[in-house]
Amino acid sequence: MKLLDLYAKMKGDLNQIEQELERSVTDDHVLLSEASLHLLKAGGKRIRPIFVLLSGKFGDYRLDVMKRVAVPLELIHMASLVHDDVIDDAQTRRGQLTVKSKWDNRIAMYTGDFIHGKALTIAAQLPNPQIHLILSSALVQMCVGEMEQIRDFFNTEQTIRNYLLRIRRKTALLIAISCQLGAVASNTDRSISNSLYRYGYNVGMAFQIRDDLLDLYGTEKQIGKPPGSDMRQGNITLPVLLALKDPAIRDSLLSEIASIRELGGKRDTGRAIEMIRKSDGGEQADQLANRYVKKALQALEGLPNLTAKKNLIDIAHFVGKRNY
Amino acid sequence: MKLLDLYAKMKGDLNQIEQELERSVTDDHVLLSEASLHLLKAGGKRIRPIFVLLSGKFGDYRLDVMKRVAVPLELIHMASLVHDDVIDDAQTRRGQLTVKSKWDNRIAMYTGDFIHGKALTIAAQLPNPQIHLILSSALVQMCVGEMEQIRDFFNTEQTIRNYLLRIRRKTALLIAISCQLGAVASNTDRSISNSLYRYGYNVGMAFQIRDDLLDLYGTEKQIGKPPGSDMRQGNITLPVLLALKDPAIRDSLLSEIASIRELGGKRDTGRAIEMIRKSDGGEQADQLANRYVKKALQALEGLPNLTAKKNLIDIAHFVGKRNY
Repeated sequence: MKLLDLYAKMKGDLNQIEQELERSVTDDHVLLSEASLHLLKAGGKRIRPIFVLLSGKFGDYRLDVMKRVAVPLELIHMASLVHDDVIDDAQTRRGQLTVKSKWDNRIAMYTGDFIHGKALTIAAQLPNPQIHLILSSALVQMCVGEMEQIRDFFNTEQTIRNYLLRIRRKTALLIAISCQLGAVASNTDRSISNSLYRYGYNVGMAFQIRDDLLDLYGTEKQIGKPPGSDMRQGNITLPVLLALKDPAIRDSLLSEIASIRELGGKRDTGRAIEMIRKSDGGEQADQLANRYVKKALQALEGLPNLTAKKNLIDIAHFVGKRNY
Repeated sequence: MKLLDLYAKMKGDLNQIEQELERSVTDDHVLLSEASLHLLKAGGKRIRPIFVLLSGKFGDYRLDVMKRVAVPLELIHMASLVHDDVIDDAQTRRGQLTVKSKWDNRIAMYTGDFIHGKALTIAAQLPNPQIHLILSSALVQMCVGEMEQIRDFFNTEQTIRNYLLRIRRKTALLIAISCQLGAVASNTDRSISNSLYRYGYNVGMAFQIRDDLLDLYGTEKQIGKPPGSDMRQGNITLPVLLALKDPAIRDSLLSEIASIRELGGKRDTGRAIEMIRKSDGGEQADQLANRYVKKALQALEGLPNLTAKKNLIDIAHFVGKRNY
C-alpha cells in the first residue's frame, strides 16, 4: 500500500486528532492561541499521531485514549519546532512565516512553553503515570539533544557516535515513544510495546539520516529551501562527517566549512556540497540508513499479523527509500 | 516566631530538599547541569518548598513524598526565572550573573526547557495523576501570565483587574498549588487542601503587591537593584495604576512614563517615582495587600491547630508587613 492510501484509510481518526490538536491550543489568551494555531495550520505529516494510532491497534484500541496520547506527542514536537526556530533564527518553515518571525523571539519562547504545558495537561488526564514519566523524560532528552546540537555547531572533529547520539535525542526518541505509548495506552503486553519502541527508534534514526542526506543531495524544489542549509547553520551531518574521512578532500572541505562559518548565511555552500557529492559519504550514510530500516523491520517480526503491522512495514520501506 | 526561627526549625527537611534539587538537575550534559546549578546556587528563599512542607503537616507527612512535590514546584519557579531573564534582558539576579548573560539566550531557553522537563519527571514518579494535572495546568497559566505581562508592557490604560489577573497567574497560582499539593500528596481531606489553596493564593497576591511596592518605595540597598526597574522594563504595577487615577498628577506621570518608554533603560525613573510617592497610590496598594493577607488568614480558620498552622499565620503576617 502507498503512504497516501494509508492516510486516506486513516482519515477519519486523523481528522479527529486534528480537531483535538486545534482545541488543545485554543485558549482565552488570543495571542498564544493565534501563534499556536498558526504553527498548527502550517501543516506537517502528523507522523507521530500515525505511529500512535497504528501501535494502538495491537491492543485495546480506543480512539479517545489514543487522542490523549497522540495529541501531546505532536504538541511536544511542535513546541520543539518553535524553540528551534528561535535558535536557528529561521524566517520560514513549510513555506509559512515562523512564530519568531511573524511575532518575535519572546512570543516564540512563551508559545513553546505554552504548548509544552498544554501537551502535559492532556497527557495528565490519562490515569497511567508510566505515560507521564515517559513523556517528561523524553522532554529532558530532547533538550539535551538540542543543546548537543548547539555545542556541536561547526565542530568538524565530532565523532559519528556524537552525531548518532544527537539525532537519537533530537528525532528518534520521540518517534520511538510514539510507537511505545500507543501500545502502552492500549494495554498491550510489555513485549509488544518494547518491540514497537525499537521499531520507532530505528525508523526515527533512518528518517533523520535520510533528511540530512536530502539537505545535501536534493534539489531546492524537493527540499522546500536551498540545499546546504544544515551546513550554513553549522549543523554537521553524517554525510559531511563521512566525507571528511576521505583524505583526498578532507583539507579543502575543512577550509570550505571554515569560510561558511566565517561568512555565515552569505557564503554559498555549492562548492562544499560538490565536494561531498564526489566523496562516498552519501553512499555510506545511505547504507547506514538502510541498516536502521532493516533493524526496524526486524523489531516487528514477533508481532501479530495485523493490518497495522503491514502499515508499519510500508512506512519503514518508505522512509528507507531514497527521496532525492 | 520569627521567620528565621522557622527556617532554623525546618533546616533538616529543607537541607534534604536542597540536596534533591541539586541531584535533580545534575545530568550527563555538563552545560545544562552547570547552567541549572548556577541558577540553583544563586539561592532564593525556597518559599514554595516551605509551603509544601507546612501544608503536608496537615496529613500523613512523609518527607520522601514531600520532596517529590516540593522539588518540581521550586524547579518550575526556577525555569520561569531563566525564561524571564531572556525576555527582560536581565544581566544579574540575586547579585549573580543570569544564565543568559553568563552563557547566552539560546542556552537560557533550553536550560528553562530542561528544568521544566526535570520537574515533570520527578512529579511523574508520584502515583496520583491529579498532581500532574494541577502542575501542568499551572505551567500553562504561568505562560499566559508572562504573555499578558508582555502584552501589557507600558500599557497605562490597563485596568486594575488586568493587573490582578496577571499577578495571579505570574505569582499567586504557583504559591497556591504549593500549599494545595503539599496537602493533596499527604492525603488530607479535600476541604483542607482547598483551604490551603485559598491561603496560598491570597498570600501570593499580597506577596506580589508588596514586591511591586518595594520596587517603588524601597532603597537600592533593600531592593538589590535600583528602584523603578519594573517601570523601566514597562511593567506597570498597582501603585502606578492607582497613582494614574489621581487627576492632579495623571498627565505629568503619563508623559514621564512615555519618555521612559522612549529612552529605554537610559531614562532616570526618579521623577516618576517622586510623583507616585506624592499620590496615595502606595497607600491604596498597601491596603489591598493587607486585605489579601486578611483573606489568607481567614482561609486558615477551619484548619486544626497544629504548629504548621501557626507557622503559616506567621508567614502571612510577615508578607503583610511593610518591607520598605
